[in-house]
Amino acid sequence: MTDIRDYVTQHADRLYADLDAWLRIPSISADPAHAGDVRASAEWAAEALRRTGFPTVEVWETDDGGHPAVYAERLVGADKPTVVVYGHHDVQPVDPLELWESPPFEPTVRGDDLFARGAVDDKGQVLFHLLGLEAALASYGELGINLKVLVEGEEEVGSPHFAALLKRERERLRCDVVVVSDTGIFDKDTPSMCTGMRGLVYSQVDLFGPEVDLHSGSFGGAVPNPATEIARLCAALHDDDRHVTLPGFYDRVVPLSDRDRELMAALPFDEAAWLRDATSTATLGESGFTTLERVGARPTAEVNGIWGGYTGIGQKTIIPAEAHAKISFRLVADQVPAEVEESFRQWVAERVPAGLRHEVRFMGGVRPCLTPLDHPALQAATRAMERAFGGQILYTREGGSGPEADLAEVLEAPVVFLGVGLPDDRIHSPNEKVNLPNLLRGAEAAAYLWKELADADLGRP
Amino acid sequence: MTDIRDYVTQHADRLYADLDAWLRIPSISADPAHAGDVRASAEWAAEALRRTGFPTVEVWETDDGGHPAVYAERLVGADKPTVVVYGHHDVQPVDPLELWESPPFEPTVRGDDLFARGAVDDKGQVLFHLLGLEAALASYGELGINLKVLVEGEEEVGSPHFAALLKRERERLRCDVVVVSDTGIFDKDTPSMCTGMRGLVYSQVDLFGPEVDLHSGSFGGAVPNPATEIARLCAALHDDDRHVTLPGFYDRVVPLSDRDRELMAALPFDEAAWLRDATSTATLGESGFTTLERVGARPTAEVNGIWGGYTGIGQKTIIPAEAHAKISFRLVADQVPAEVEESFRQWVAERVPAGLRHEVRFMGGVRPCLTPLDHPALQAATRAMERAFGGQILYTREGGSGPEADLAEVLEAPVVFLGVGLPDDRIHSPNEKVNLPNLLRGAEAAAYLWKELADADLGRP
Repeated sequence: MTDIRDYVTQHADRLYADLDAWLRIPSISADPAHAGDVRASAEWAAEALRRTGFPTVEVWETDDGGHPAVYAERLVGADKPTVVVYGHHDVQPVDPLELWESPPFEPTVRGDDLFARGAVDDKGQVLFHLLGLEAALASYGELGINLKVLVEGEEEVGSPHFAALLKRERERLRCDVVVVSDTGIFDKDTPSMCTGMRGLVYSQVDLFGPEVDLHSGSFGGAVPNPATEIARLCAALHDDDRHVTLPGFYDRVVPLSDRDRELMAALPFDEAAWLRDATSTATLGESGFTTLERVGARPTAEVNGIWGGYTGIGQKTIIPAEAHAKISFRLVADQVPAEVEESFRQWVAERVPAGLRHEVRFMGGVRPCLTPLDHPALQAATRAMERAFGGQILYTREGGSGPEADLAEVLEAPVVFLGVGLPDDRIHSPNEKVNLPNLLRGAEAAAYLWKELADADLGRP
Repeated sequence: MTDIRDYVTQHADRLYADLDAWLRIPSISADPAHAGDVRASAEWAAEALRRTGFPTVEVWETDDGGHPAVYAERLVGADKPTVVVYGHHDVQPVDPLELWESPPFEPTVRGDDLFARGAVDDKGQVLFHLLGLEAALASYGELGINLKVLVEGEEEVGSPHFAALLKRERERLRCDVVVVSDTGIFDKDTPSMCTGMRGLVYSQVDLFGPEVDLHSGSFGGAVPNPATEIARLCAALHDDDRHVTLPGFYDRVVPLSDRDRELMAALPFDEAAWLRDATSTATLGESGFTTLERVGARPTAEVNGIWGGYTGIGQKTIIPAEAHAKISFRLVADQVPAEVEESFRQWVAERVPAGLRHEVRFMGGVRPCLTPLDHPALQAATRAMERAFGGQILYTREGGSGPEADLAEVLEAPVVFLGVGLPDDRIHSPNEKVNLPNLLRGAEAAAYLWKELADADLGRP
């Protein structure tokens, strides 16, 4: 029987070549100008899945002209457990471009790392499954599970059509467990598994005042200033203890139990190292919680962008005609995006002074998700990760947001996370990278996981 | 004796032709790319002054490579009163360009108005003096005053080198009164004279956090967010009553006397019409003061620009690496720019949380100024305006800022304001215009004024 690790090591070049080809496609889902690239990325993924031996591969269109997803399936028997692997093929925008040391869509290897937009988030983590599948087949002859792969094209814009797609294709996607590969491990030396992810509400608030920019001498101090008011709105999001001030915001939040806090405290968290990864010099957050709790288990409000008025060289003495902000909320179980949106909409309306017109737009809410630690699928994934990484697997919660909650809810299956990203991989930032040895461990873990799940009691009827 | 009004009317075309030529020079002082245009504008003005009959005309360089000023003098006798006329030849930036109905540097007449950047602020108001001088000479044969003209090139960037220039050229500029033509009248039907202008402190605040934009999921809620913090700074400028919160900010403010408030209340102020000029739908300002008081006699804080993070289409879930704001303060007598700057610098430093680096830069403070109502020069100017406009002249205070205080202080002379702008001239905004009939009244008033000042008792030794 071929050893999984040997197979993965011997065929690593195939993974690297695929990675190089796929990462050259700038599949930025946020920018309509790149819609064709997102489609090209889907077509590329479909071809790669066909090549890997999936008998059925389809590009799935989404509603309202959204970006396409790719679906592949490899069925071995109705009596076997069925797994859906989830990943995404779209990537974040790349600005500020000048901060990249090598061009974001020209994958460049430096040491053990490969640098490119999407290297770890998420193309690398989709691709390790292809090598993992080959390794499993070479080792076990056949899988004891039905494998379905779903690679989305709109994850980086909040998966606006994903829930509808899941509902439309619910029968095809029927499964016993969902494996999400879009997360990371605690650090290079501490393999771990994510058990929850935060949800997201993302908004743009627009304030409109005078029809034109006004002379701040002639009118300053006497009419509402959109730039001042957008600042007052953004500032009012937090009180002095950095609690979020939206009414009812914390009502549904699952409180951290003593065991939750103990598990988090068991992680070898090095705040100084974390700050270095954050390229920051001090922490700041909700009082009463540790940094790990703040990013994993507590909801937040963030200003992702703010703009209005004169931003050029020197001075221009105006009251700007308009001002804007991108304001987002990270949610935790069991907050409901639609409720937060409604609360925020009302909160803004109450704070905009007479004389300003306002608009609040939302872009794709994401539900938070949390998986029970004692679920057999999570235990199986833990064993697969332990074999790949050769050590104990700890548990984390990730601060980021994905469509995991939709998967769990629509497909009525538990979600486990098989991810190998590192905290300094700079996802969403310039110089995103992936650690290549970790990608190989991901391929290994995936191969082990199919065997573990085939043998696990997933409570099938 | 030639009638002043007849002369001005008959030679209006000369003024209009000059205006058309000068306004085509985009002398934007805020933008280094336009430095050559500011110089060309100075050269043009010098030539026009020579042509008008000033025997001495010089382009004056300013320190540190600042934009040049133009100086002209026409002396008739050491025993005569001496007047310095002040104006400026630089203009504001023009963005947003797409809101201009005709290109900002292609002067276009529609009805009684001429549209162009700088039409009223301030090229039109400098040029009416040339026609006024010709009219006065045609009517009186000779002026009873020594006339000096100083046309600055950095007024729209806060006159950073103007005080130094005045000090350097103090002897050449020695005078009994300064006439500033860079203001307006109350409205089309209410000729008035400005008696005070607000000062200005203009700053840029830069906040720097992480070295790169961070993923707001991975780091959100746990490190300081420059966009949130710039918003909190801007929001903290005012309390809920819209008083400015800077410590000591109001300490030196000359309180409004009962007579001051009565004079302001005597103006036929139509708040609805004022709001239309402001293209706004509601007033908002410091509680306890009327709109006229707020813009003329009370200091303010304004956010002129704010920016940081993602401002593109759709969503990007980041904590931005940096954020910025342009924050300015309008000052009234007797506030001191340097004191406000120091207070603001400390105030910012106290409010930036650990983990963010900050910079505060100031761009050209301007002192406020206020002229006594009973000064003989102001009374002379009042009579000249009454003849030109054919009615009573009321008194106003302007909310804008200019280098008037420097003129008063360095030249040790009172400042009177001879301006003919209208409140809806859109200075600093797209579609700036000047009312051409008012420009002719300005030329008339200037001609009368030289006679009035020659006859006035200016308290010369």
